[in-house]
Amino acid sequence: MALIDRPFLSLLCIYLFLGSLVITCIKALETNPETQESDRVINLPGQPSNPSISQFSGYVTVNKEHGRALFYWFFEAQSETSKKPLLLWLNGGPGCSSIGYGAASELGPLRVSKDGAGVYFNEFAWSKEANLLFLESPVGVGFSYTNTSSDLTILDDNFVAEDAYTFLLEWLQRFPQHKSRDLFISGESYAGHYVPQLAELVYDRNKDKTKYPLINLKGFIVGNPETNDYYDYKGLLEYAWSHAVISDQLYDKAKHVCDFRVSNWSNDCNDAMNLVFEKYSEIDIYNIYAPTCLINTTSSSVGSNDSLTKANNYMIRRLRIPGGYDPCYSTYSEEYFNRADVQSSLHAKISGNSRGKWRVCNDLILYKYNFTVFSVLPIYTKLIKGGLKIWIYSGDADGRVPVIGSRYCIEALGLPLTTSWRSWFHNHQVGGRIVEYEGLTFVTVRGAGHLVPLNKPGEALSLIHSFLSGEPLPTRK
Amino acid sequence: MALIDRPFLSLLCIYLFLGSLVITCIKALETNPETQESDRVINLPGQPSNPSISQFSGYVTVNKEHGRALFYWFFEAQSETSKKPLLLWLNGGPGCSSIGYGAASELGPLRVSKDGAGVYFNEFAWSKEANLLFLESPVGVGFSYTNTSSDLTILDDNFVAEDAYTFLLEWLQRFPQHKSRDLFISGESYAGHYVPQLAELVYDRNKDKTKYPLINLKGFIVGNPETNDYYDYKGLLEYAWSHAVISDQLYDKAKHVCDFRVSNWSNDCNDAMNLVFEKYSEIDIYNIYAPTCLINTTSSSVGSNDSLTKANNYMIRRLRIPGGYDPCYSTYSEEYFNRADVQSSLHAKISGNSRGKWRVCNDLILYKYNFTVFSVLPIYTKLIKGGLKIWIYSGDADGRVPVIGSRYCIEALGLPLTTSWRSWFHNHQVGGRIVEYEGLTFVTVRGAGHLVPLNKPGEALSLIHSFLSGEPLPTRK
Repeated sequence: MALIDRPFLSLLCIYLFLGSLVITCIKALETNPETQESDRVINLPGQPSNPSISQFSGYVTVNKEHGRALFYWFFEAQSETSKKPLLLWLNGGPGCSSIGYGAASELGPLRVSKDGAGVYFNEFAWSKEANLLFLESPVGVGFSYTNTSSDLTILDDNFVAEDAYTFLLEWLQRFPQHKSRDLFISGESYAGHYVPQLAELVYDRNKDKTKYPLINLKGFIVGNPETNDYYDYKGLLEYAWSHAVISDQLYDKAKHVCDFRVSNWSNDCNDAMNLVFEKYSEIDIYNIYAPTCLINTTSSSVGSNDSLTKANNYMIRRLRIPGGYDPCYSTYSEEYFNRADVQSSLHAKISGNSRGKWRVCNDLILYKYNFTVFSVLPIYTKLIKGGLKIWIYSGDADGRVPVIGSRYCIEALGLPLTTSWRSWFHNHQVGGRIVEYEGLTFVTVRGAGHLVPLNKPGEALSLIHSFLSGEPLPTRK
Repeated sequence: MALIDRPFLSLLCIYLFLGSLVITCIKALETNPETQESDRVINLPGQPSNPSISQFSGYVTVNKEHGRALFYWFFEAQSETSKKPLLLWLNGGPGCSSIGYGAASELGPLRVSKDGAGVYFNEFAWSKEANLLFLESPVGVGFSYTNTSSDLTILDDNFVAEDAYTFLLEWLQRFPQHKSRDLFISGESYAGHYVPQLAELVYDRNKDKTKYPLINLKGFIVGNPETNDYYDYKGLLEYAWSHAVISDQLYDKAKHVCDFRVSNWSNDCNDAMNLVFEKYSEIDIYNIYAPTCLINTTSSSVGSNDSLTKANNYMIRRLRIPGGYDPCYSTYSEEYFNRADVQSSLHAKISGNSRGKWRVCNDLILYKYNFTVFSVLPIYTKLIKGGLKIWIYSGDADGRVPVIGSRYCIEALGLPLTTSWRSWFHNHQVGGRIVEYEGLTFVTVRGAGHLVPLNKPGEALSLIHSFLSGEPLPTRK
């Protein structure tokens, strides 16, 4: 038995020693500031070997006291890194992940492949045009977290902007080589709030150089952006009728009972608008001519309607996906980013704690979010005067934040027209239309839904190239 | 030399003899009434051997004095022929061919394949649901002709209806086995005039049994139909704006200067609407989200705008066609139906005379046509009271006769609603929406353009099945 006892004790000692070593290492990681190189992603499970991609991901603590940390995923520009601007991308929701949508389904160089088996190279990645930084914002979204759960009940636009601002400062400390680059902020949907608000915060604080480090912000671009509740909802209703989604009767009724100028809709208006959303629950409101995903999903919403999410949760059998558009993209993301090997490669911490599953959209954030800002149009007026470069684009097949509402918003700014409405071209076809005002450019993307870089990747790349480079979009076949 | 002369003379004699024989045969064909069996199409060049298709084509003289003959192509129902109704299909324009569009590109069992090399079987053919009769109407369209060229200058809706009525009577004489079947009339675009007008003529003459043979007409169905100029053009303008085709400024201007209630638009209105059509010349107005055909074409219009046709005639290089939609379909038809072997198989006579090339749309007919009817809504009111079964359908991605205008037209009829607006489903996806009034059913087809059976073949077959069989369209996933 002694022969047996001794090796057992030796093993125990080794285990205890290794254990304490692991704990020490973890403590070191937690207390020591992370470095750029420690954030480098060596390789993702199922990643193609060509082309080579220089990527980093990890956490930036934005509030030590509360234990709030935002997760980012960064891709160096694929060529001439030092000459390319830095582009921050934010998804909306509120509650949706810039990793799951922006990076892995829309404009990042690595898109999740079917069934979450791996990632493939996206030949229309915006990293061809910029150093590309995806941020999961606010805390509670995706891999971003807080150790103070009460934080999640006080989220509002101001909170989001402050954390994102802190993130930016800290991230530029960790990646100082990007400090001097032109910075542009981009995003879609509810990031129509986040983006101009963050731009405004940077713009304001840049004025006080004694207190805040300078951030080299040059402008922003937003897609199908929530901008002004009145115009956005007026647009949503008119879009639903003009695109044959709702009946004449419902349209007339909603027009009659709804006053979208007030935040609290009347009961009659709520009833009518619920009927509008009910009609939209049968199709993909974010891409009204596309097929819906027929796989059972746990989360599918980038919008803000409960019934929508519930309606999409039917357990229905999978069908063949028509060519060119896969409505099940978010399902694949959820499969991929919940893999332990993927999380480990990305330096993401979700498996090791009790925060549960990574989701492409966290509905709890959506439900608890404090919607206090009715319109960001005043920010536009201010930042246009401030000389920032500002573009809005709109996929014209989106029913959620439709092109009609965005046009009303822009009209309301009362800007002088500089170049009139005309088509722009991509591969000899009309990519959409473009109209330029003093200080603002508006671009539509023909046939694209809410997620323009997903639906029309070539057109979207052409668009961001034009925005960043200043080269005009082609207006001839 | 004598040895040479003798065979030469013999050959000459044989040629002369054969020549006179051919002339005699042609004369016999010209003077003797054609029979059903002589119209049978044995086989078309490049036709698949499976499934077997029973088809007939040829001419029906509608006016002996003027030498006016209309060309038809008929397909027996693929199964249970004797139990299936007879469905007449008419294309619009005016000037467009029911052979080139309806039969060979849309709903017929034999569709022209790429580059006009042959025909392939269309699994969504409406001959699954009906005995299917395509008519090239009026004279001057496709293979239909008149020996009195002045006929072409006096074409109007009344002329078209009278000739089509005569055709129907004569055709039923040649195919008496179809006399007793339920007859439905169908068509699209400007056939929105032809179809109800022909239905009205049949309806009226059916009352006078002493003078006219009874035609067993049960109803009609029209797709994206020109119905009432005021509502159609109001709809066209609103559609162009709400679908991000034209600018806010142009929309406001056209609304201000145009009175679509009058037939003669003011110069200001003409100018404004020309600008609207100019924007539409850059895309496929008939399917606004689809790519345009980049092959050089000689005719591409089913509408009524000169600049459109011209604008589409650019000599541009061919591009890869995106999956699922081929915008060059009419080019293939023109290649196929101009082949001598095809014309011979179809008993069509164009090669043998000076009428020149077969075209999918004859622009001369369009330019010379006398547009005298502003609205066919009174016919709807009359025939709804008369108990005919009447359906209108609308592909909601059509900019030429948009769903918005059709909705205004139907509203103007003031019919009591019987079943309210709801989605109908096809393959677990929303196929479109359906709303029922007393005596009229309106169905939209989601994402389809002007040529619904081309763009959404499965949905279109489901729709015609429901119309003909009386079985409701599925309103659940």
